[in-house]
Amino acid sequence: MKRIGFLGLGIMGRAMAANLVRAGFQVTVWNRTSAACAPLVELGARQAGSIQEAVRASEVTLAMLADPEASHEVALGADGVVSCLQPGQAYVDMSTVDPDTARAIGDAVTRVGGRFLEAPVSGSRKPAEEGSLVILAAGDEALYREMAAVFDCLGKKSFFLGEVGQGACLKLIVNMTMGGMMTLLAEALALADRCGLDARQVLEALDSGAIANPMFRLKGDRIVEDDHPPHFPLRHMQKDLRLAVSLGDRLGQALHGVATANETFKRALGAGLGDEDFAAVARIISG
Amino acid sequence: MKRIGFLGLGIMGRAMAANLVRAGFQVTVWNRTSAACAPLVELGARQAGSIQEAVRASEVTLAMLADPEASHEVALGADGVVSCLQPGQAYVDMSTVDPDTARAIGDAVTRVGGRFLEAPVSGSRKPAEEGSLVILAAGDEALYREMAAVFDCLGKKSFFLGEVGQGACLKLIVNMTMGGMMTLLAEALALADRCGLDARQVLEALDSGAIANPMFRLKGDRIVEDDHPPHFPLRHMQKDLRLAVSLGDRLGQALHGVATANETFKRALGAGLGDEDFAAVARIISG
Amino acid sequence: MKRIGFLGLGIMGRAMAANLVRAGFQVTVWNRTSAACAPLVELGARQAGSIQEAVRASEVTLAMLADPEASHEVALGADGVVSCLQPGQAYVDMSTVDPDTARAIGDAVTRVGGRFLEAPVSGSRKPAEEGSLVILAAGDEALYREMAAVFDCLGKKSFFLGEVGQGACLKLIVNMTMGGMMTLLAEALALADRCGLDARQVLEALDSGAIANPMFRLKGDRIVEDDHPPHFPLRHMQKDLRLAVSLGDRLGQALHGVATANETFKRALGAGLGDEDFAAVARIISG
Amino acid sequence: MKRIGFLGLGIMGRAMAANLVRAGFQVTVWNRTSAACAPLVELGARQAGSIQEAVRASEVTLAMLADPEASHEVALGADGVVSCLQPGQAYVDMSTVDPDTARAIGDAVTRVGGRFLEAPVSGSRKPAEEGSLVILAAGDEALYREMAAVFDCLGKKSFFLGEVGQGACLKLIVNMTMGGMMTLLAEALALADRCGLDARQVLEALDSGAIANPMFRLKGDRIVEDDHPPHFPLRHMQKDLRLAVSLGDRLGQALHGVATANETFKRALGAGLGDEDFAAVARIISG
Repeated sequence: MKRIGFLGLGIMGRAMAANLVRAGFQVTVWNRTSAACAPLVELGARQAGSIQEAVRASEVTLAMLADPEASHEVALGADGVVSCLQPGQAYVDMSTVDPDTARAIGDAVTRVGGRFLEAPVSGSRKPAEEGSLVILAAGDEALYREMAAVFDCLGKKSFFLGEVGQGACLKLIVNMTMGGMMTLLAEALALADRCGLDARQVLEALDSGAIANPMFRLKGDRIVEDDHPPHFPLRHMQKDLRLAVSLGDRLGQALHGVATANETFKRALGAGLGDEDFAAVARIISG
Repeated sequence: MKRIGFLGLGIMGRAMAANLVRAGFQVTVWNRTSAACAPLVELGARQAGSIQEAVRASEVTLAMLADPEASHEVALGADGVVSCLQPGQAYVDMSTVDPDTARAIGDAVTRVGGRFLEAPVSGSRKPAEEGSLVILAAGDEALYREMAAVFDCLGKKSFFLGEVGQGACLKLIVNMTMGGMMTLLAEALALADRCGLDARQVLEALDSGAIANPMFRLKGDRIVEDDHPPHFPLRHMQKDLRLAVSLGDRLGQALHGVATANETFKRALGAGLGDEDFAAVARIISG
Repeated sequence: MKRIGFLGLGIMGRAMAANLVRAGFQVTVWNRTSAACAPLVELGARQAGSIQEAVRASEVTLAMLADPEASHEVALGADGVVSCLQPGQAYVDMSTVDPDTARAIGDAVTRVGGRFLEAPVSGSRKPAEEGSLVILAAGDEALYREMAAVFDCLGKKSFFLGEVGQGACLKLIVNMTMGGMMTLLAEALALADRCGLDARQVLEALDSGAIANPMFRLKGDRIVEDDHPPHFPLRHMQKDLRLAVSLGDRLGQALHGVATANETFKRALGAGLGDEDFAAVARIISG
Repeated sequence: MKRIGFLGLGIMGRAMAANLVRAGFQVTVWNRTSAACAPLVELGARQAGSIQEAVRASEVTLAMLADPEASHEVALGADGVVSCLQPGQAYVDMSTVDPDTARAIGDAVTRVGGRFLEAPVSGSRKPAEEGSLVILAAGDEALYREMAAVFDCLGKKSFFLGEVGQGACLKLIVNMTMGGMMTLLAEALALADRCGLDARQVLEALDSGAIANPMFRLKGDRIVEDDHPPHFPLRHMQKDLRLAVSLGDRLGQALHGVATANETFKRALGAGLGDEDFAAVARIISG
């Protein structure tokens, strides 16, 4: 797997594609708005004028797109991936989507003889830049093994989880836990503030025991300073919480904690915080 | 501070007192049921027949008691600490209590000329045994400094937080966050199970990203095996959640996430899980 | 509007169709399983062998179907209503669906020159039998006026709400309120029981003040006796709560209370109570 | 029971005392700030200069006070009711308090040979004025029967519930249901607004079915007009929700719905709405 197509150059995609170029892969990039391709071309990537051109130039095509709708369109649209995929060619969708969308794409790819992996990632901008994402793959297991060098370049760890849809499920589970923990951190800091405690000491205490974790460390400071440059936009977190609650609805699993976090994030969205980092939910909680 | 009284030899207290004996302090122990003193005496501690005897034999008396009621009784009861404390003598209550109880005890101690610290700890049995607790002290700052050698023996880190009550507040804030995170972990594992995911992979994925934390690692396995030896009993966690919600009530801070976790823990209590480890709340969530 | 087609003879539909027959309308009935038609034929209805036959025989065709999927299929399926509707002919869907489904059907009907009303109803079996439903109509206002005699026969009150979709929205809003109130009633009775209060006195007290309502009266007794013959099955209520939460998601409206009720109903569903009356949620709450 | 002492002339107490005067009882009133007595004196009441004077002048003394603290002080304070109550004399506390406070007062009254009823009421200003309160009495059953004429004058219905504390419990249960229903109504109207529905039609639809109730009718209009003259102040409702959640904590009864409502009311309190009518919680929910 030397020749790689890369579709989608947003915050995540551009960092991932750049890592592949730097690692010596022959990368052909495509983006809906072509201007985003320039920095990659400068690094040594080739630019495709269309999805089909990117697919044809590559052994495997990766995609990193904004949401289920974009994933659907790029894979299944009139001039999309499936329209030109050759038997035996591989498509790996790394976007975060719901299980149904993943399965719809996987089915269409295999119907034309292609090979498919869903491979959503855990981690936001910084891990994408540092090649330390966590990759949650499912689908064609042989393809998963052939992707080893590619995934090693993009992430620090990868999982093979079974049938298509399992990757999407685990991604939602990781993110719903993260979203719930963020509301807890915000409640802790808001209550501490009302108690007259020093926020730095509170964060240090939280970081000294069994629940110490990188997110509290990183986002705790952001909440104290009420400064939220978007690494993972709040509206995306709310979407993931919503999809997780729906998954619970479908499978008959009550999720009182996650549903509560979802409502709190919805309030934040309603307050116009959708484009801030998801830690900005703290503003709603302390308000 | 060489001569130390130690009141309360439950799971936590006995481990802490043992560490002090081993470190060379002269420790006089007392426990409501005296049988618990034997192992400490074997290690080299002296046994007091009453609270007053323990206090009189010591420069500083520490207490590690089960709940606010026990703290109140040991400090303020007819034959309690305050009844015999000499001016200048020190009392350090390390039990987890609510801020009001801490303040009531602190006031009584200083009224008779004593010196007082509240010093609840973060960490359960294992950190107590290993001397790696986190100590959340507040009250008499000079006394806090004189306690350095004692606290170094018991914990890996200590904080001085200001006025009496702040220690209790921070302790509740740490524990409410922990309780909320436990319900999220349990919801994650329950949903994963319904998705047909492998629990070990789910725990590994949770442990690979920004929310990785020791509690998920430790308790995740316990939940998967549905085996819950009590390190921190569920009924104590529910009590702390209740006290945290009440603190929010008093200070006008809404805590939607914590209140939801409190109700879920109450269900677990109602199902007879109070004496299991607090991770047993997972049984209620997956049920 | 004398000649009426009636599609769907479930608990609700059969009672409504019977009222129309008794009122002298010429009713042609159709049901997926034709056996359900017999009692109506006995009353004087004609039985159609297909949807198309029912539509062709009627000035207006009413439908009362189980869920959005059934509504979609009956209206838009290969041999469905739209496949044979003549320009100017009317279709009125009284099923409870989400706004998107209502709009999809409405669009298809008007595209072939038909006239459309969505008209979900508030009220379950008994009001259906007694002709005392509340009809929440939206779409073609002229058609709404022409339906006056029909709606008078089926319901005690009807609303015209504006564009297609508004009926579905209001139906979900009424039902989410009902579902939330049911969990509150169950919590009240469960807490009262733990207080040692007499359930009858509690119900009488609830019925004596500003929150007295027929549902508490009716379902309160059912909860006390723990006997739940399905008038409105629990799984349908959970579906409506889920759709309401989703509607809030789409419109950015946080619904902490409704989302909490939804999770509680999901627990009841997971406990196998889906086919009992929705008041059976009480069993989960008192458990 | 002709000679009645009446302690506490707030919104509720003054209306109740006035009804007793008008009905021909000999009423001696007392209030912490004596100015409040003037309108009652004008009606024909006598004014007492102290609690003790009011008690001594009466066969039975009624109290209607703001909160548990005031109830405690008036009954058990140095110059309070118990300090001068003669054996066989009766005291009826109609304030809303928690069960523990009711029991503390009841115990003290009976210890000095007095007779006691707790008798909190359901209903706010208007029912107080109209003599249509609902009285939730518990304690001395013979006294309850002797109070028939008095209770008939104050309320439209009364209950005898058993031991002291049961009245307080039922009062909290009624009010927690009311508070939860208010948040549901507010969520319904907020979602309806986002759907573009007409609020009047929504209220009419809610009033046409099984959940129709006087509170929705009365407060629905207030929410639509966002005008909240305090009949039942929001801070009192939050207090009752808090006491109900605590009662559930004590008895091991999870109350997910009520706890959620409590947090929402706390947000409203934090937003400065404590002195508005409790329907003002809608402002927080639609915000």
